[in-house]
Amino acid sequence: MSPSAASGPTPDGPLTIAQLAALAGVSTATVSKVVNGRSDVSAATREQIEDLIRTRGYRRQRRPTKSAALIDVLFHELRGLYAIEILNGVQEVAHEHRLGVVLSEMGGRHVPGHDWVEEVLARRPIGVVSVFSGLTTEQSDRLYSRDIPLVLLDPTGDPDPDVPSAGASNWNGGLAAARHLVGLGHRRIAVITGPDHMEAARARLDGFRSGLDMAGAPIDPALVRPGDFEIETGRDLASDLLRLDAPPTAIFACNDGTALGVYHAAAKLGVRIPEDLSVVGFDDLPKAKWTVPPLTTVRQPLKAMGAAAARMILALAAGEPLPQQRVELATELVVRESTAPPRDRTA
Amino acid sequence: MSPSAASGPTPDGPLTIAQLAALAGVSTATVSKVVNGRSDVSAATREQIEDLIRTRGYRRQRRPTKSAALIDVLFHELRGLYAIEILNGVQEVAHEHRLGVVLSEMGGRHVPGHDWVEEVLARRPIGVVSVFSGLTTEQSDRLYSRDIPLVLLDPTGDPDPDVPSAGASNWNGGLAAARHLVGLGHRRIAVITGPDHMEAARARLDGFRSGLDMAGAPIDPALVRPGDFEIETGRDLASDLLRLDAPPTAIFACNDGTALGVYHAAAKLGVRIPEDLSVVGFDDLPKAKWTVPPLTTVRQPLKAMGAAAARMILALAAGEPLPQQRVELATELVVRESTAPPRDRTA
Repeated sequence: MSPSAASGPTPDGPLTIAQLAALAGVSTATVSKVVNGRSDVSAATREQIEDLIRTRGYRRQRRPTKSAALIDVLFHELRGLYAIEILNGVQEVAHEHRLGVVLSEMGGRHVPGHDWVEEVLARRPIGVVSVFSGLTTEQSDRLYSRDIPLVLLDPTGDPDPDVPSAGASNWNGGLAAARHLVGLGHRRIAVITGPDHMEAARARLDGFRSGLDMAGAPIDPALVRPGDFEIETGRDLASDLLRLDAPPTAIFACNDGTALGVYHAAAKLGVRIPEDLSVVGFDDLPKAKWTVPPLTTVRQPLKAMGAAAARMILALAAGEPLPQQRVELATELVVRESTAPPRDRTA
Repeated sequence: MSPSAASGPTPDGPLTIAQLAALAGVSTATVSKVVNGRSDVSAATREQIEDLIRTRGYRRQRRPTKSAALIDVLFHELRGLYAIEILNGVQEVAHEHRLGVVLSEMGGRHVPGHDWVEEVLARRPIGVVSVFSGLTTEQSDRLYSRDIPLVLLDPTGDPDPDVPSAGASNWNGGLAAARHLVGLGHRRIAVITGPDHMEAARARLDGFRSGLDMAGAPIDPALVRPGDFEIETGRDLASDLLRLDAPPTAIFACNDGTALGVYHAAAKLGVRIPEDLSVVGFDDLPKAKWTVPPLTTVRQPLKAMGAAAARMILALAAGEPLPQQRVELATELVVRESTAPPRDRTA
């Protein structure tokens, strides 16, 4: 317990942000950052405030109107099974706590419009989970000013690193994909990346590259093709790769959609999977096991990620400190039938 | 204008349900049914009440608390691209009207639990869209009692036929699938159906059967296999069909998931699509064009169906009569590469 925690007369019962700020000798903005799980506060100050909260308790400021039994989930785009899996996780936790899940999407933009923040402030959810999308600092500050906590899931763009977030261990997933392919005997391995403004995509590529390096089979830069997680792009880039004089014997597609595009390119060119080409995806969406042949892919626990983000919101809304600012759930390689040893070991 | 509409002194301005009931000489329950778009009211009474509303206006009863800027969407299960497409349509209309979309799912059951109704009553949305799921009469009556309108999308089970609903012209879609296959020269055609408790599934089968009948190629009852819209079931039933002494040359799979199962069964048995087997699906989910080969399927405009249901809710919430009790949007056959003339015309 810090010395200040026991000093000074204050009313009994849990403290408000204003009372905590007065006791700690800091601004209310600083206390607000601590209780909203942000990390841009010095360790000493954070510790002092958390000590105060532990010993004296914390209660949210009385608001003009109390929050509704809702959690807001914001998607940059409502598309594909990725969104459904995450929604299922949020929904499961929300249902346990009798909260409704409100869905917003931004029509493909990565920053929500002005209207969106106004609507959120008007409906007063207990918190906001922002999926694969970023809020401007001004937007997140407006949420904080009304005591509406924010958690990022798979952050993109240039997210405020202080905002709590949930995701998967993308780097380890990329590493596992590389080790699997090298272990099968592949040496000429291509990768089709995700959008480079997305942390998750960069981490997958970095892990993959490190895996190849560590195996003594460093990647050929000519075989790294910048993709965008779209099926069409995966198809087009794979077509280019497969038409090289020395085509790769394996492709790591940084999401399952890209892998589906690779399947298409291979089918058009008469390249057989896995006999002529091994393919590894990333996501393990429910359909991955239903491609022909079933896709070897890195599973990320999307439903668990959604559930984790919702639990972080619940903790923040209850004024509890987060055990971790960044929750990272494990990925796992799922080996199916799209990978095999290369046909020609000399290739 | 009916005679009673001009008679009797009433306060100026639009009428409440109680005033409409007094003027028309019917119960408030009857007026409530008319303004909530239900059809279980005699034509004469409905006309009389609608005349009154047209000439004098209608205003909703003052409620203890006004509704929140929310539309509730209830799914029996939050799974697959079907749900995403419908949500996109609801979301688009909701966004135009600055409404939040609240998502619920029932974990695979087709009737929501007691909790769900309580939660909806507590959050007071302007209305509820129930997708591929049914409410009990008691549950829908509880919503009506609080002036919360309900619209069914793809009704299942034994829905109250009086509740407004939106869907696709499933029967015509089945018919189009049959005509396409017969036109290619197929005669030995199998069908894997959807769940028989679902109106949409029955309508697809009926349309398909009629199409074959009308073409003088009536279906062989042994080739009609009862499915459930699941990939696994599609695969298992297709395996059975393809192992018959006289296997079908074409299969109509009553949704795209089932068609994906057929693709799997064919791949395992070395049956080539479309050379040895033509396959037609139903839905045209975004992934249908990405199967190998791309799937010929009946497109249902899921996004437009979601939007239509949301617009019905907006009309009902505004006290406007619905132009139609049942909105049915057109389906369309999309011919891709999974269908071709049968290899052996004598088969």
